[in-house]
Amino acid sequence: MQRLILVLVLLVSVVGNAYASEPLLVEKQSFSFENYTTVGGETIPEVTIGWESYGELNAAKDNVILITHFFSGNSHAAGKYSADDALPGYWDSIIGPGKAIDTNKYFVISSDTLVNAFANDPNVITTGPASINPETGKPYGLDFPVVTIRDFVNVQKRLLESLGIEQLHAVVGASMGSLQALEWSVAYPDAVERMVSVIGAGAMDAWTIMALEHWARPIKHDPNFNGGDYYDGEAPLTGVASTLAMITQQAMHPVIMNMRAPKPEVLPEAALESVLNSTPVLDYLFANSLARAPLADGNHILYLVRANQLFVAGHQGDLASGLANVKAKTLFLPASNDLLLQPYLAKQAADILTEQGKAPQYEEIEGLWGHLDGLFSIPSKADTLKAFLESE
Amino acid sequence: MQRLILVLVLLVSVVGNAYASEPLLVEKQSFSFENYTTVGGETIPEVTIGWESYGELNAAKDNVILITHFFSGNSHAAGKYSADDALPGYWDSIIGPGKAIDTNKYFVISSDTLVNAFANDPNVITTGPASINPETGKPYGLDFPVVTIRDFVNVQKRLLESLGIEQLHAVVGASMGSLQALEWSVAYPDAVERMVSVIGAGAMDAWTIMALEHWARPIKHDPNFNGGDYYDGEAPLTGVASTLAMITQQAMHPVIMNMRAPKPEVLPEAALESVLNSTPVLDYLFANSLARAPLADGNHILYLVRANQLFVAGHQGDLASGLANVKAKTLFLPASNDLLLQPYLAKQAADILTEQGKAPQYEEIEGLWGHLDGLFSIPSKADTLKAFLESE
Repeated sequence: MQRLILVLVLLVSVVGNAYASEPLLVEKQSFSFENYTTVGGETIPEVTIGWESYGELNAAKDNVILITHFFSGNSHAAGKYSADDALPGYWDSIIGPGKAIDTNKYFVISSDTLVNAFANDPNVITTGPASINPETGKPYGLDFPVVTIRDFVNVQKRLLESLGIEQLHAVVGASMGSLQALEWSVAYPDAVERMVSVIGAGAMDAWTIMALEHWARPIKHDPNFNGGDYYDGEAPLTGVASTLAMITQQAMHPVIMNMRAPKPEVLPEAALESVLNSTPVLDYLFANSLARAPLADGNHILYLVRANQLFVAGHQGDLASGLANVKAKTLFLPASNDLLLQPYLAKQAADILTEQGKAPQYEEIEGLWGHLDGLFSIPSKADTLKAFLESE
Repeated sequence: MQRLILVLVLLVSVVGNAYASEPLLVEKQSFSFENYTTVGGETIPEVTIGWESYGELNAAKDNVILITHFFSGNSHAAGKYSADDALPGYWDSIIGPGKAIDTNKYFVISSDTLVNAFANDPNVITTGPASINPETGKPYGLDFPVVTIRDFVNVQKRLLESLGIEQLHAVVGASMGSLQALEWSVAYPDAVERMVSVIGAGAMDAWTIMALEHWARPIKHDPNFNGGDYYDGEAPLTGVASTLAMITQQAMHPVIMNMRAPKPEVLPEAALESVLNSTPVLDYLFANSLARAPLADGNHILYLVRANQLFVAGHQGDLASGLANVKAKTLFLPASNDLLLQPYLAKQAADILTEQGKAPQYEEIEGLWGHLDGLFSIPSKADTLKAFLESE
């Protein structure tokens, strides 16, 4: 069994590398506009988000595929900013010349969301609680309005409009990106021809809303949190690290995590000395999370958690009412071993669309990564994706 | 599908109630002894634990079944302390006269562990960081030695010896109780005839060790924690509540949680007003956890987390070396939908025993509760359990 697993992992890795050869060189760009009114009815005086694109926009502007990013991700979906970059964008295995999302055909555009978690990452351009409130000259903190997935979509719509784009050949997103992709097809049904939801959901259920709250509490209860007003002092990095560690561990299936983490030691001396002492297994997760924490912003994570918690496609009475709007062809690709957004969530949306006579396509990604199969095992669905994008 | 689920749940509930009719009246007892030396080589001057029993010890003292409890449980496995009690002990559906663990035949004994999580519950008798250190007259706090699952077993052995019991017809435990049950059969192979591991594991893997650490961090990082020295001040109840909420949510499969929790509201006003505002779904979990928090002790939870993190049956070089000691007949009953201790953990132990030629019995509990199927769906394995206990 272990041998089989290793073979499978190597296979995935080889397939991934084959796809990932010669990444495009890409450039991060910025888009700003004024006076955005949120779903909640508040106005944000100035919104700026980052974006990047792969391939060329054709004259008819009808070859556009929008990529929407996951919770801890950003617009960097493919290519490298510099040939020296250690890694290309997260979906480089499927976005590029001749790949499943073929940049020889399509103009692929990917944007940062509002309230991006890693607000302090120099490659992220976002607007959120850590941004300067022009009315006060200080960071918004919790004065920033609560935003929803629909707000992410509306801001992306403004970005596309600024480029003269009215129509999407497809919108494709993984995890939180899948919520945006589906919301696009509900909010702007005439603008979206195809929708691909990878490791996604149609609505958050009570269980997942609770699971998301576990990500919020370490930040809310960090002694440095101070009601979100910590920009003049110490950031709530202990809480942020706890949250990042949960996300990392929950997004990975035990099989892969156990292969990558150190082997647990038998009765390690330090662990027997004090319950406060760490072990190599714990360091593997938590030291890494603490190292990444300064790039994230605690308030931004709280806003992302809330946006996800509030998600039901269409934000109408129930999911079926929202999905009734959908005109796009739809493809759902949940991951069989996903422990974070389990396949029943995508299946629920697909089943409702089927009941509505819309013939969604549904296939599960098989893999050993769990939720992360949506990123790392996506090459196994490259043919499905390519055929879906080429279909009439 | 929803209708099928409801029928199944009602069925489980009816079967459970049938088994639970006329619970025994039981009495909590206390056992103390002095100078216990831990696996880590530290001495605890005085140990006191609670216990209770169901059925009668025979003259040969060879009809004993030991029940070992789960992380948030205690010795109250069956019966009621008073006829007025709202609920009987957690496994009353399978422990009692004529039930799977038949108290007409067996003397069933169940004990509280060291460092029980709910140290402040009047029905729990335990020794741990909240106990008074006789050397200082104050609670131990983190001066209490780190203890292991083997320590829980060794203390239970002393309890049994005080009753003149040298031999166990069986040891049966769920979750953390399964670790104790297996450890009994490794540590005292000649004393254990049968071992039943319900929703259990043979060793903690890296993934589960990390998952357990998420339960520890809210307490360690609560502003009131103060290095575990909080007994003269405010207890770290916010952290404890976060931990209890995680345990509750992770022990339940989404199907059951979604049926029991309030339906998520569409864009509730309070949730749109501030990321700090709660919702009925969140209140359902967190208000309940906060209400239970004062009965738990933060340090005790940290010690339980550590005991579980350190577990590999036998605490030897690897799991196979530990299991090589086992002479008992073994039965593993993981739950198919368990998200907390997934079935692969029990299967790993069973597979090693099979390789060692020991013919373990392995069956999965089917149910919709997830980890809690080990408690609530156990009646579905009553016949298996009964036959196993009656087998030669």
